[in-house]
Amino acid sequence: MTRLVDNPDDFPSQAVAGFASAFPGHVRPVFGGVVRAARTHRKVALVVGGGSGHYPAFAGWVGPGFADGAVCGNIFSSPSASQAYSVCKAADRGAGVLIGFGNYAGDVLHFGQAAERLRSEGIDARCLLVTDDIASAQDHLARRGIAGDLPVFKVTAAACEEGRDIDEVVRVFNRVNDRTRSFGVAFAGCTLPGGDEPLFRVKPHHMGVGMGIHGEPGIHDEALGTADEVAAMLVDGLLADRPENAGTRVVPIVNGLGSTKYEELFVLWNDMCCRLEAAGLTIVDPQVGEFVTSLDMAGVSLTLVWLDDVIEPLWLAACDTPAFRRGVIGQVELDTTALPQTAEHVSVVHPGSRASQETADAIVTALEAVAVRLAECSSELGRLDSVAGDGDHGIGMTRGSQAALAEARRVREDGAGAATTLNAAGSAWSEHAGGTSGALWGAALTAFGAALGDDDPADDHIIRHATRAALDAVTSLGGAKVGDKTMIDAMDPFVTTLESSSDQLPQAWESACHSAGVAAQATSEMTARVGRARPLGKKSLGTPDPGAVSFHEVVVAVGSVLSK
Amino acid sequence: MTRLVDNPDDFPSQAVAGFASAFPGHVRPVFGGVVRAARTHRKVALVVGGGSGHYPAFAGWVGPGFADGAVCGNIFSSPSASQAYSVCKAADRGAGVLIGFGNYAGDVLHFGQAAERLRSEGIDARCLLVTDDIASAQDHLARRGIAGDLPVFKVTAAACEEGRDIDEVVRVFNRVNDRTRSFGVAFAGCTLPGGDEPLFRVKPHHMGVGMGIHGEPGIHDEALGTADEVAAMLVDGLLADRPENAGTRVVPIVNGLGSTKYEELFVLWNDMCCRLEAAGLTIVDPQVGEFVTSLDMAGVSLTLVWLDDVIEPLWLAACDTPAFRRGVIGQVELDTTALPQTAEHVSVVHPGSRASQETADAIVTALEAVAVRLAECSSELGRLDSVAGDGDHGIGMTRGSQAALAEARRVREDGAGAATTLNAAGSAWSEHAGGTSGALWGAALTAFGAALGDDDPADDHIIRHATRAALDAVTSLGGAKVGDKTMIDAMDPFVTTLESSSDQLPQAWESACHSAGVAAQATSEMTARVGRARPLGKKSLGTPDPGAVSFHEVVVAVGSVLSK
Repeated sequence: MTRLVDNPDDFPSQAVAGFASAFPGHVRPVFGGVVRAARTHRKVALVVGGGSGHYPAFAGWVGPGFADGAVCGNIFSSPSASQAYSVCKAADRGAGVLIGFGNYAGDVLHFGQAAERLRSEGIDARCLLVTDDIASAQDHLARRGIAGDLPVFKVTAAACEEGRDIDEVVRVFNRVNDRTRSFGVAFAGCTLPGGDEPLFRVKPHHMGVGMGIHGEPGIHDEALGTADEVAAMLVDGLLADRPENAGTRVVPIVNGLGSTKYEELFVLWNDMCCRLEAAGLTIVDPQVGEFVTSLDMAGVSLTLVWLDDVIEPLWLAACDTPAFRRGVIGQVELDTTALPQTAEHVSVVHPGSRASQETADAIVTALEAVAVRLAECSSELGRLDSVAGDGDHGIGMTRGSQAALAEARRVREDGAGAATTLNAAGSAWSEHAGGTSGALWGAALTAFGAALGDDDPADDHIIRHATRAALDAVTSLGGAKVGDKTMIDAMDPFVTTLESSSDQLPQAWESACHSAGVAAQATSEMTARVGRARPLGKKSLGTPDPGAVSFHEVVVAVGSVLSK
Repeated sequence: MTRLVDNPDDFPSQAVAGFASAFPGHVRPVFGGVVRAARTHRKVALVVGGGSGHYPAFAGWVGPGFADGAVCGNIFSSPSASQAYSVCKAADRGAGVLIGFGNYAGDVLHFGQAAERLRSEGIDARCLLVTDDIASAQDHLARRGIAGDLPVFKVTAAACEEGRDIDEVVRVFNRVNDRTRSFGVAFAGCTLPGGDEPLFRVKPHHMGVGMGIHGEPGIHDEALGTADEVAAMLVDGLLADRPENAGTRVVPIVNGLGSTKYEELFVLWNDMCCRLEAAGLTIVDPQVGEFVTSLDMAGVSLTLVWLDDVIEPLWLAACDTPAFRRGVIGQVELDTTALPQTAEHVSVVHPGSRASQETADAIVTALEAVAVRLAECSSELGRLDSVAGDGDHGIGMTRGSQAALAEARRVREDGAGAATTLNAAGSAWSEHAGGTSGALWGAALTAFGAALGDDDPADDHIIRHATRAALDAVTSLGGAKVGDKTMIDAMDPFVTTLESSSDQLPQAWESACHSAGVAAQATSEMTARVGRARPLGKKSLGTPDPGAVSFHEVVVAVGSVLSK
């Protein structure tokens, strides 16, 4: 379990600060993460990232020959778009920015938003999704990213370092991502900072086959045999999933997840090595150690990179980072330009009209009610979330709504109108809540605000229109439909009822709340049934997330303000 | 816990084989451990070592600029003298060999024997004991070695690499060992390969202050506070134990023991860094990561190296090893000379006289009886040992006696007399049993054999004299006296009774066994009392080791052969 903690809320930022202070020759802190300490020539920049808790991934790979920057989210939670934007801006070397990350919903959302904003500023920014985990989907490009992050980013970074243009680098990325495949097992879950219970449990003497690096459910559990039996399963699984034109030269990467230690990894590698050679493969530059961890989770994965003439020299090229070094990087000059350390520079207050400022006052009042209500039901939301997810929904919603309120108050004092207030609130919510729901609520608030604008007074019609805009934003970002057991199940009937009602807004809002409440109730009941049936610590696929319940709480809280 | 295991007995050797296969550019396997893969110029060689289970210590530090070889013992058990001798021979660069290790009894014994043998062959071999753990004793030179191994070995190795002569290197070692101090805490114990229970437990939300890297008891347990409180305790403890003329420049090394992970170490370092700076110290080149682990034990230590003009440049000098790299080591040429992979070359059979060969036959018969008897009481010896130690006494004695028997048979077939047979048996016992008792039994058999010689027939008088020689060897190696609750408590009265008896040998031996049995009985009873009283998994100081019990079993088994 995680024991060395000051304040669990500050754990990820303290870890980044400590990391940057331990490696001043390699990295410099910037709001949202770290960038290279070394001055770097004009080139395509590679920024990598994702949630924290996976060190050396991702910050441990920043330095000459490897990444230009790393975005560091909360533990196991996607960074916010503004964190990603901030690191990318600082890492930009004038020839485009590639943002590399494992294929997880929250990362796709937030890094996508950051890339969008960079492009709006004229920077050619693109997202690169690593998809190496063969256990997570049939289609290679639909898979999630695990320890394959290391070789895929390393090879892509080496192509950037050679000065290739962005289209060429993207082609290299696609090639190495296609030829990198991983397969893993878990023996025991890790405990989040401040937590007392592991995220999941595996029966003693068993292993979760194909389990993800945050404890996502695997294909199945099976009895744990000898090291050689584990070696056989992982090697055979990967050999059965060779890419096209695989060839016979492979880089094997044996990755310990945290508390499966070096001596065990060497024993396992000893067995794997024999099996790979028996399969007629030539082993090139094997890697055995900890590369993509999951706090102190027990488990191991094997990655195979199927080399070709393009990939092999890029993999072997020199680099010098805190956690991965090879070859010789000459003396570097340290970059001493100032870097922003807070989110301030991301938000710029545009003054609203008098009428819109009045709407903004009402928005602040509504956000107060929302923050109070979400804090009240935080543990209940956490309990519901622990059945299907990682139990942080209550904490995330509370943090998000409180940050949104603080930011709304701040910009409102600076004269903001409705759109600017909600945009600032949305960014803060997304950043502080973390996770997918943080991104979705951020997008909802921003879209709602955009529909209100900073000039016109808000009338009933505009507000109805704004709720539809918020729904569209959530649907388009999150991709969920009604029936997928997400917040959309409550939000869609809410918006439809509000639009179709001929009542005045407060009454119409109440009816709409009732529609949302039906979905919320269904979610709670379904979760309770699954919750009672599931084995201890075992996650259940198909269980609703509590998004419908928290959505209902939010709109009821807003309704209490509207009816005054 | 340790889960990736084929056969627990082969775990350490498989781990070394896998390690060597993962780092072919850095190390080459040799009987007993690994040596540098790079061809190396004439210089003082530094060989480091100790038990396995501490990776990157010690094998991870072999390579240009750092160690010339590493001796790899069983998990948490000292390597045998022949393993140490073999690695030192392969690592010798013609200017003397320094053997560096943490100050543990088994290591002192075995490395001392190896150094003795090297010196007898004209190689200037010396032992260097690291003593950094301030919690283990008041007198710095009486302390045990923990994570301070890293800087002490690194600095010493850099002095070797510069081509300094052996006396100068020893002076550098003494200097850096004096100026390196560590202090640690443990949160949870690790589980040995093949085991089901951790070596020790710490109460939830508590920490064992000053606990050793094999779970040796600490100063006391206390409640686990925040990371900053842990930082304060470790920093304050080390500041209160500064060496003379400490100065103000320090290298801090924050070491994770295995499952206390990187993010936690960075959070802790963030707090420590502030405290060290507040104390007016200048931080040079901090190290935060895993350096000296203890399988998957949870815990952390802080080491401070108090720099001076001699130490600082040596610490910062370039090196390139599997687990520790800095600066630039140019291209190296690989050494391709053949290296011995078995113990064969260590033992050379000297033919005995016909009479001595008959004595050797009787010795083989006696060793058969001993091996059978120790296998029968293996679990009982393990149970007794688990009260005071790590529970491996039964396994160790069984392995040792079986290996001794096999080796005695082998050399007897090649014509060996009594001395050569017992010498081979002693080496095998020491090597395969591991631990302190393995070394003591090895020394006892060798001394007994030396008294018999390879020429003369063995009469009653010579055998009585030989038992006294064995006792002297054990006393001189182990340093224990009667009353220290070790095997000496049984061995001393056994030898005294045998010497003073005027009976024929078989009867005298029986009386002597009776004297040994009294001590064995006392040990069992004392252990049972402590065993009932101790808290779960908590080791008890002052509890007898079961050496008196196993000694009694051995002499009774030998007596059964004598009386035939």
